[in-house]
Amino acid sequence: MNTEYFNQRRTIRKYSDKEIPAELLKKMLESAMRAPTTGNMQLYSAIVTTDKEIKEQLSPCHFNQPQVMSAAAVITFCADYNRFIKWCEASDAIPGYNNFQSFMTATLDAAIFAQQFNTIAELNGLGCCYLGTTTYNAEEIASVLHLPPMVVPIITITVGYPDGETIQVERLPVNGVIHQNTYHDYSEQDIKNIHSEKESLEVNKGYVTENHKTTLAQVFTDVRYTKADCETFSEKFYKFVEKQGYKFPDNK
Amino acid sequence: MNTEYFNQRRTIRKYSDKEIPAELLKKMLESAMRAPTTGNMQLYSAIVTTDKEIKEQLSPCHFNQPQVMSAAAVITFCADYNRFIKWCEASDAIPGYNNFQSFMTATLDAAIFAQQFNTIAELNGLGCCYLGTTTYNAEEIASVLHLPPMVVPIITITVGYPDGETIQVERLPVNGVIHQNTYHDYSEQDIKNIHSEKESLEVNKGYVTENHKTTLAQVFTDVRYTKADCETFSEKFYKFVEKQGYKFPDNK
Repeated sequence: MNTEYFNQRRTIRKYSDKEIPAELLKKMLESAMRAPTTGNMQLYSAIVTTDKEIKEQLSPCHFNQPQVMSAAAVITFCADYNRFIKWCEASDAIPGYNNFQSFMTATLDAAIFAQQFNTIAELNGLGCCYLGTTTYNAEEIASVLHLPPMVVPIITITVGYPDGETIQVERLPVNGVIHQNTYHDYSEQDIKNIHSEKESLEVNKGYVTENHKTTLAQVFTDVRYTKADCETFSEKFYKFVEKQGYKFPDNK
Repeated sequence: MNTEYFNQRRTIRKYSDKEIPAELLKKMLESAMRAPTTGNMQLYSAIVTTDKEIKEQLSPCHFNQPQVMSAAAVITFCADYNRFIKWCEASDAIPGYNNFQSFMTATLDAAIFAQQFNTIAELNGLGCCYLGTTTYNAEEIASVLHLPPMVVPIITITVGYPDGETIQVERLPVNGVIHQNTYHDYSEQDIKNIHSEKESLEVNKGYVTENHKTTLAQVFTDVRYTKADCETFSEKFYKFVEKQGYKFPDNK
């Protein structure tokens, strides 16, 4: 099998009008369900939204990123203990999964499932885009999608047939990310070496200028992922996870 | 490209003595780094442990599951804001990532990266096994691997060349996991239908008998994932995540 696809893949944000055959979408999700899952519990669900009106309701939850409306399907991947708990209750078994560790387990299950779907969809000629807004506005998304307790949206992927070409963005050098045997913490010089190519790219220099900053890192800290936003969305998501039924240890 | 692999894949827990060429391991991790990542921040790191003595130290952290010693490599995937924060600090940028939302972002980045690696490794003829013990004993793993603040182990994958054949375990029917447009909550009959095939399998009936239970769900609630264990490991992991520098909203 050709693994060159993995080196060539890229995020696709622009889609043609072509619909995805329902049978293909279902088969791809079924294949993705073969991804690893904790104790074979499959603590996830996927909501496939193709209806225009429901996409319109989802759109503001994702800060109106245009992919939500232009993609053939918006797939919301959820950490889901609801089905498993209902199965326990129907089987004279007493579940104890309303806690942080179980939330993490279901989150990892959902993420692994989502990424497996992403790969399968791309290998079938589709283009995908992860929306990082899912954990920001989980409560609003849950309302639109009628998510019951113990179901928390974790990842959204928009999917459709690509419209035109997209360039591939850079990555850090592999030695900047991989550690042999144990973690070797970074010196200031290591950090410079790891990031020098990234910082030297014209496209990234452009982001610095456009945002009136002096370094690329400032584009992240001051514009894209600010401390204030991170803290606002931390509190919002934390409360929502508890509202859905997963209690954090301090609040028991 | 043949996507049949995705339907056929299975977890491999038994490995031959054959080593994985270091260059192949590096190339596979490099390809996996092309997986989607939030804002191209790559908030992850991977520690590749092949040294026998360090594997021996990791082994009890994973409750002495034999894969840790028998696999050619034990790869610990971490949610990692350490490198990104050091880059910010070296770039006159003030990071604000010591919070729950940032922890979730890095966790998802690490999980997506891990799963992409899993797929690439399997496509290269290797066998892999996720160890769910990573978030149970994150603190002990961090100690063995010398993880600095802002680095939290999330997923461990053991990887090696397979020794012999392994059967594929069952999955739920796709319609039990996928929802169209919005979530349609499960009736008791739905739950029975979704789980009937799983419960009827001889291998699963065997688990019920072996564990002196009356239903398969009880094997999960009373033996494999008990309320007491989930709560113990919730508290332990929660405290460790905070110790590494990610503060949950209530504790600010």
